[in-house]
Amino acid sequence: MKTRPIGIFDSGLGGLTVLKALRKKLPHEHFIYFGDSANVPYGAKSRQTVTKLSVAIAQFLEQQDAKLIIVACNTASAQALPTLQKKCHVPVLGVIEPGAQKAIRLTRSGRIALLGTEGTVRSGAYEKALKKKRKDIRFFAKACPLFVPLVEENWTHKPAARLIAQEYLAPLQKKRVDTIILGCTHYPILKPLLRQIAGENITLVDPSDTLAEEVHRLLTKLGQSQTTGRGSARFYASDDPARFKRLAKLVLSAPIQTVHLKKLNV
Amino acid sequence: MKTRPIGIFDSGLGGLTVLKALRKKLPHEHFIYFGDSANVPYGAKSRQTVTKLSVAIAQFLEQQDAKLIIVACNTASAQALPTLQKKCHVPVLGVIEPGAQKAIRLTRSGRIALLGTEGTVRSGAYEKALKKKRKDIRFFAKACPLFVPLVEENWTHKPAARLIAQEYLAPLQKKRVDTIILGCTHYPILKPLLRQIAGENITLVDPSDTLAEEVHRLLTKLGQSQTTGRGSARFYASDDPARFKRLAKLVLSAPIQTVHLKKLNV
Repeated sequence: MKTRPIGIFDSGLGGLTVLKALRKKLPHEHFIYFGDSANVPYGAKSRQTVTKLSVAIAQFLEQQDAKLIIVACNTASAQALPTLQKKCHVPVLGVIEPGAQKAIRLTRSGRIALLGTEGTVRSGAYEKALKKKRKDIRFFAKACPLFVPLVEENWTHKPAARLIAQEYLAPLQKKRVDTIILGCTHYPILKPLLRQIAGENITLVDPSDTLAEEVHRLLTKLGQSQTTGRGSARFYASDDPARFKRLAKLVLSAPIQTVHLKKLNV
Repeated sequence: MKTRPIGIFDSGLGGLTVLKALRKKLPHEHFIYFGDSANVPYGAKSRQTVTKLSVAIAQFLEQQDAKLIIVACNTASAQALPTLQKKCHVPVLGVIEPGAQKAIRLTRSGRIALLGTEGTVRSGAYEKALKKKRKDIRFFAKACPLFVPLVEENWTHKPAARLIAQEYLAPLQKKRVDTIILGCTHYPILKPLLRQIAGENITLVDPSDTLAEEVHRLLTKLGQSQTTGRGSARFYASDDPARFKRLAKLVLSAPIQTVHLKKLNV
């Protein structure tokens, strides 16, 4: 049924940037967002742990009758997507593939960099996805563990944020990359700052735009696209829904009404 | 039996600063350190979640025949100590009480500040402990979520670290505090920087020194103090022991041999 919701999850709040892009592209769809605030961040967790958590969340979203599941978290996309696609009865899309696709389309020099969490960088998933599409890609990656707390402190406009971003970008600029993938859902919030530091000759890729197009294409193909009526979003967090609600306002630049508590059984 | 180990746990690596202080004061004791790297950080988790995790870890340490359990994590000390003391069969000590005690002893003006995680600040545990000892204490607190990743990036000497620390300390300096409690086990690593910014007129309190004295006193009183032979330490992490080992070197300024993987059943 077309009116079934689209399930979307992230380790925490960052995935709300993906939800925002999806709602813009698909304004008639209903969404269920799950933020695993009890286990955030996934960035430094092992593949096994990230997979176990992701499977539990996907099961919850299937119980909520999701017609499609979106893994908004880069770490979970990098580490758990194949397992999720095997275990779920509905299509599961991650953010890596759309991010890689867009980067390949935009690069001129073939020198592409990734900014991400430790887990995403270590997984090698972006490099694999990029090189599958184009063998001669030169790939560079930088884990940026300070970016998430900077965003959550709402300090993106402070001088410290600039210094930190300069520090993370410097080695990539030295490698003369022309395309940088923002491989963590919090990072698009830093885009204006990264834009200033990277300059005009480097393209910043936010995978969520391409993901939204892909979701639209897939739903249309399956005859599952909701094209009339007003869309909606329902929010769940696995811990401290009040904190989630407070920070969600920061990410979405708009308040949300209710966040339900839903503990995971893992 | 005196030779039984002392159990000590933290949400992650930070508690190693406490272990360091304990081993210095109690060089003949055996220690078992548990870092809950699968669930780090505790700072933004709810009281209920932190308590559930802490109880599971304490049970593991009791199974390992610990004669005493030390909650090296400020967040867990603030939120779970009473429950742990009720559920455990051996004495359980936290870091809040020793930190408060030392601050009271050192303050001249009675104006005391706390730097800590969101969870520790929100719990109000330090304020309660301080005011129980001295009613007229003026208490101020600042959550510093960027400090932990700064330490784990090994960026404590960079200009960004200075800007961030200045930002966090400024409101406390304005309140003319004369004593600042370093209420998170990662923060003592930032002590030289905080020292420079705070100046000579503010005393920085690291609760772990007082804790070590208290442990020594308690074990002596119970006739459980190990006063001969060479001490040891065994390490467990609930996720990614390799990462734990790598970062432990940073905190301890010395490498550790083996980190065992021990998953929690929660």
